[in-house]
Amino acid sequence: MFYHDNKLQYTVKVDKPNPAFANMLQQAIGGIEGEIRVCMQYLFQAWGFRGDVKYRDMLMETGTEEIAHIEMLATAVALNLEGAPQSLQEEMAKDKIVGAIMGGMNPRHVLSAGMSAMPVDSNGVPFNGSWVVGSGNIAADMYANVMAESTGRLLATRLWEATDDKGMKDMLSFLIARDTMHQNQWLAVLEELGGLEGVHPIPNSFPQAMENQDANYTFMSTRLDCKPETDGRWTQGKSMDGKGMF
Amino acid sequence: MFYHDNKLQYTVKVDKPNPAFANMLQQAIGGIEGEIRVCMQYLFQAWGFRGDVKYRDMLMETGTEEIAHIEMLATAVALNLEGAPQSLQEEMAKDKIVGAIMGGMNPRHVLSAGMSAMPVDSNGVPFNGSWVVGSGNIAADMYANVMAESTGRLLATRLWEATDDKGMKDMLSFLIARDTMHQNQWLAVLEELGGLEGVHPIPNSFPQAMENQDANYTFMSTRLDCKPETDGRWTQGKSMDGKGMF
Amino acid sequence: MFYHDNKLQYTVKVDKPNPAFANMLQQAIGGIEGEIRVCMQYLFQAWGFRGDVKYRDMLMETGTEEIAHIEMLATAVALNLEGAPQSLQEEMAKDKIVGAIMGGMNPRHVLSAGMSAMPVDSNGVPFNGSWVVGSGNIAADMYANVMAESTGRLLATRLWEATDDKGMKDMLSFLIARDTMHQNQWLAVLEELGGLEGVHPIPNSFPQAMENQDANYTFMSTRLDCKPETDGRWTQGKSMDGKGMF
Amino acid sequence: MFYHDNKLQYTVKVDKPNPAFANMLQQAIGGIEGEIRVCMQYLFQAWGFRGDVKYRDMLMETGTEEIAHIEMLATAVALNLEGAPQSLQEEMAKDKIVGAIMGGMNPRHVLSAGMSAMPVDSNGVPFNGSWVVGSGNIAADMYANVMAESTGRLLATRLWEATDDKGMKDMLSFLIARDTMHQNQWLAVLEELGGLEGVHPIPNSFPQAMENQDANYTFMSTRLDCKPETDGRWTQGKSMDGKGMF
Amino acid sequence: MFYHDNKLQYTVKVDKPNPAFANMLQQAIGGIEGEIRVCMQYLFQAWGFRGDVKYRDMLMETGTEEIAHIEMLATAVALNLEGAPQSLQEEMAKDKIVGAIMGGMNPRHVLSAGMSAMPVDSNGVPFNGSWVVGSGNIAADMYANVMAESTGRLLATRLWEATDDKGMKDMLSFLIARDTMHQNQWLAVLEELGGLEGVHPIPNSFPQAMENQDANYTFMSTRLDCKPETDGRWTQGKSMDGKGMF
Amino acid sequence: MFYHDNKLQYTVKVDKPNPAFANMLQQAIGGIEGEIRVCMQYLFQAWGFRGDVKYRDMLMETGTEEIAHIEMLATAVALNLEGAPQSLQEEMAKDKIVGAIMGGMNPRHVLSAGMSAMPVDSNGVPFNGSWVVGSGNIAADMYANVMAESTGRLLATRLWEATDDKGMKDMLSFLIARDTMHQNQWLAVLEELGGLEGVHPIPNSFPQAMENQDANYTFMSTRLDCKPETDGRWTQGKSMDGKGMF
Ligand SMILES: [Ca+2]
Ligand SMILES: [Ca+2]
Ligand SMILES: [Ca+2]
Ligand SMILES: [Ca+2]
Ligand SMILES: [Ca+2]
Ligand SMILES: [Ca+2]
Repeated sequence: MFYHDNKLQYTVKVDKPNPAFANMLQQAIGGIEGEIRVCMQYLFQAWGFRGDVKYRDMLMETGTEEIAHIEMLATAVALNLEGAPQSLQEEMAKDKIVGAIMGGMNPRHVLSAGMSAMPVDSNGVPFNGSWVVGSGNIAADMYANVMAESTGRLLATRLWEATDDKGMKDMLSFLIARDTMHQNQWLAVLEELGGLEGVHPIPNSFPQAMENQDANYTFMSTRLDCKPETDGRWTQGKSMDGKGMF
Repeated sequence: MFYHDNKLQYTVKVDKPNPAFANMLQQAIGGIEGEIRVCMQYLFQAWGFRGDVKYRDMLMETGTEEIAHIEMLATAVALNLEGAPQSLQEEMAKDKIVGAIMGGMNPRHVLSAGMSAMPVDSNGVPFNGSWVVGSGNIAADMYANVMAESTGRLLATRLWEATDDKGMKDMLSFLIARDTMHQNQWLAVLEELGGLEGVHPIPNSFPQAMENQDANYTFMSTRLDCKPETDGRWTQGKSMDGKGMF
Repeated sequence: MFYHDNKLQYTVKVDKPNPAFANMLQQAIGGIEGEIRVCMQYLFQAWGFRGDVKYRDMLMETGTEEIAHIEMLATAVALNLEGAPQSLQEEMAKDKIVGAIMGGMNPRHVLSAGMSAMPVDSNGVPFNGSWVVGSGNIAADMYANVMAESTGRLLATRLWEATDDKGMKDMLSFLIARDTMHQNQWLAVLEELGGLEGVHPIPNSFPQAMENQDANYTFMSTRLDCKPETDGRWTQGKSMDGKGMF
Repeated sequence: MFYHDNKLQYTVKVDKPNPAFANMLQQAIGGIEGEIRVCMQYLFQAWGFRGDVKYRDMLMETGTEEIAHIEMLATAVALNLEGAPQSLQEEMAKDKIVGAIMGGMNPRHVLSAGMSAMPVDSNGVPFNGSWVVGSGNIAADMYANVMAESTGRLLATRLWEATDDKGMKDMLSFLIARDTMHQNQWLAVLEELGGLEGVHPIPNSFPQAMENQDANYTFMSTRLDCKPETDGRWTQGKSMDGKGMF
Repeated sequence: MFYHDNKLQYTVKVDKPNPAFANMLQQAIGGIEGEIRVCMQYLFQAWGFRGDVKYRDMLMETGTEEIAHIEMLATAVALNLEGAPQSLQEEMAKDKIVGAIMGGMNPRHVLSAGMSAMPVDSNGVPFNGSWVVGSGNIAADMYANVMAESTGRLLATRLWEATDDKGMKDMLSFLIARDTMHQNQWLAVLEELGGLEGVHPIPNSFPQAMENQDANYTFMSTRLDCKPETDGRWTQGKSMDGKGMF
Repeated sequence: MFYHDNKLQYTVKVDKPNPAFANMLQQAIGGIEGEIRVCMQYLFQAWGFRGDVKYRDMLMETGTEEIAHIEMLATAVALNLEGAPQSLQEEMAKDKIVGAIMGGMNPRHVLSAGMSAMPVDSNGVPFNGSWVVGSGNIAADMYANVMAESTGRLLATRLWEATDDKGMKDMLSFLIARDTMHQNQWLAVLEELGGLEGVHPIPNSFPQAMENQDANYTFMSTRLDCKPETDGRWTQGKSMDGKGMF
């Protein structure tokens, strides 16, 4: 069961509203790297979880935190749209700053949403449930989660670089920090599960004797014009999962 | 900010797991009539709301409740998949009941989700953010909400009819009741806003003098083979918004 | 069976072509609030209708009218693209007005459509059949229709505000008027069906005794930091459907 | 402007309702080979057309006819769903015929649409506006139209083979005939435009001298293990457009 | 089995990087007229082919060539993004050229892709597998292929016109030439299959006696305000397939 | 540039064609865990790569190998559809095995694809370009790749369990082995890049001093009914990236 209060998890302040930046923030709400995706991903993983309850509980905790991140970003979008031209008419023939703003503003922020956030990305492409990974295999899911937080943090740092609004930079520095923690958190589970040798190959429940033994630790080259690289770690030494030799 | 505990809002019990019914329940999770849609719709409306705070607060309250409905249904899907063939192999050539089950089961419940719920509908079509309406106009949004709860309750009653599992019927009787309340809730807002004459036409901020006066209360027929019906309420009397004559 | 003539339902004239406005008009063609959606929605509702023939007939009449609205808007898009740079090349480094135009123009109007309308919204996201609601329940469908016309009229008034082109304003004043009528029309059906008490909760065919009696007229709070609002209509008095007390 | 009467373009009769066949018919409504696609394709091509009015008129005529085909098929879906189990409950454990029916029935025909057609394909994937081709080049569009009618007729013949319902076979024999005509119709335009040499390569307005002269009539092989085929028409003789030698 | 070397099929050089042009090039990668579509279309047609092996082989050859076209365009996108503002911040308030560039740049090229190409079109709408036509009927497929190359070449010529970058014009002149060849190639197959009379109507395996004989070579008018055109080739003379009279 | 020969990378043999299994195999072609996704993902990462050429080369090699996996699976789908009822008609009323087959067969394999593979998943949902991750950050991309191979191998093992066809099991044992190798390969890159401490948090180019120092290594609880778990690795000890303490 879920509850809420009227506080944000962290302050959201916009010093100088910028409709183009509002549009960019949409990527962090409804994009594949965004907060709706991680929110649903952790919650659906928790709701389908059948193993050790402590992982299920943790997934619930962090999934719930992510709702608060959507809330912060949706608030930031609304604040960045304050003062945006409700009517676009006069702005169309105006000066270059307006030109720049116009260039990056999402017309649907005016036409469809009345200056509010929408569950879409920065191209206006709607959030899509197919992005949510919950495979029923905890190791696979942890990698999916590390990856989601990694591309999410990458996005947040790019947004941080794209603005010089003090309020926005502060909010993003918080979200970036949470992504740091969440990366570490999913990696911690992987360590608890036994690390590389404990979980790989994923799934490790499949009897490895049943897989083709000529193909499972061999780099196969498809290149015609020269020999494949041989100084990569993937062509020599013990395999990362400790179960074969490259 | 959001919080949770480990209780469900209402008991979810499945007496006889049924993978085909699990698939049908997906419509109430990830379908256009489903709980993810109303959850996001009410929360995004709240986050973008600029009017009387009491409406914003109520949207937040009910949006948060809907997360708990997704949780209940996701739990119900997982329980209905208990005992489903992890390997589909042997079942394929078996008897007719299995045939029926096979017919309605979503193969991705096995292949992709390891017997868990997914944010998709009962055809496996992913949840789509474009379904979430938050227009910035409270009356338009209330109609969107009444409509969402109406098609949602219709779906829930059809699911209720489609099962004779006592646990599932009980859970659905709760969700149906909540949809009853939520329909009434959004209608109550419309009454507070002034009812039909107060809000229609939507938006009522547009100067009605600017709309074409020959076309705004006239039923226009496109039918060739006979006169249009004239005994409909829409061809005679005062218009519903009290601002014109049909 | 369907027929056409070569007249538009209402004059479409563009005084000063504007490719950015052409893109905005796309929202009214292929967006979720647009004319393709209402057209398909009313026609599919009519084709599946099993009740009183007068409603089916009316749905057909208005569904057919909506094709004419798509036609008007598609014509308006083509006219707004007249004179747009067929080659974008030289415009790229030009002056600020071009900058503004470039900002709002959809590159696919040049690249894919040869200066014509497309069944997409103002972000270029394609029309999606999932938006079409035809539930088999006339009251639910009427709410879906009121909602479609409300968000549609809201969109049309925002487009009206976004342009000072006399021709476009005139066309939009007609479409706005039709949306006024259509809102009233669907509301008239709801009145004929018995109004709030006659149709709610939707569906009213479900035996209300079977729904959970503790949950169907109670506002449930999910808020932690203070008591829920108690001065909303939804927390006191008779329920809107007349069948319970809040 | 568009009109309608209450007749179907051709009789639609279902002798023995079959919900699985209802689902298959959806492919011809909302699939990429279906009637919504050709309807929108011809109408959007007409609305954006800037050349000889006789082509525009013909596109309008046939686009309008296609609405009547959607109508026939939507009627056929509704008729095939008559007698389908409104409640799926009891059928689930019944006999093998029901098993077969269950297998092919779309649960959303019960859950979402109340036994009516929807703008989706036979997998429940919604109609998508991206399928509609209107390029602004009449020859390219005519090929798109030939192709649409070819895959459409192929689909209709496969549906014809998949049923032994006399009514359905009769309806399909009409739709198949129309597809024959429409294939011929678009080919007739291509002949009028000058045939292969007149229109190819498409677009023929591009100065052919500007294209790379080493690459425009040469079959390029990407195959390693043997010489490319040399007895294909595409490796010898005059090019089909009469403007080069293979 | 597939192989590669490190050469491009043709030189890709960008003289003056242009992020807005990078976005336009995306249409040729991930758009419905783009290279991913033809690549998948020819390969899936080949992999499912059951007829004369020489057609299967040719489909494989050209499908493989198309991967090289995606590669060229993805390289061109990356080169056009060189020098684009990694941080968008300072550019936002700058001068008009930047305004113009900003207008056309896809924010996801910065936010999501780190200045690389993505499998999306020039509106950021993702490539969609539904566009890939492989019907199992070689004539229908050849028309689908002619059509794909025709809209593809049209797009390439529009891109050619939209740039004055010498490198880009040169690359496009190569891709345009390949589209010329590919149009001719698929037409050559149609000639080998017997031309219009040999393949039409598609499919020609359906017994034409089973189609409705009143409807298969008749132009049906849906127009009310005047007689249909009678001077079109489609209303007089032998049908294009030689099997009827219009 | 790309090449091919007419051999498959590994034998594809189907002992007993099974149309329902053909449909399940589609998940491994066009699903989010499938081969089209990894193919595009590695190739797009390579084409946009700006770092050490040996990684770019390896991405090209493996991306090219994945095309051969699509080829194997598409061949397997076609073989499993051999002998499937071209006409579904007679099978509809037959016996239980047919019932089971019917239940799992994708009607579009008959209606749209003429018994061939399509770029869709096992629900018929089309492949979607949004699934392809190429972020411009090699560590983030490697995690995306490990995750793709992990869910991919999980899917392949589930398919292996779902069939007792010797040919199919053999093909899958090869694909499973390749996924084992590819997991190890991307992990090997991560080791070369410095392992957890070398790459995390991702991106590691962002100055960590700029992130909120109170939030970056703290587990934040959102749970009301009891204290959060404290015996997880993520609540004590050094952070996994070695840069903080939980
Ligand atoms: Ca987050
Ligand atoms: Ca609910
Ligand atoms: Ca309208
Ligand atoms: Ca047709
Ligand atoms: Ca090409
Ligand atoms: Ca693979």
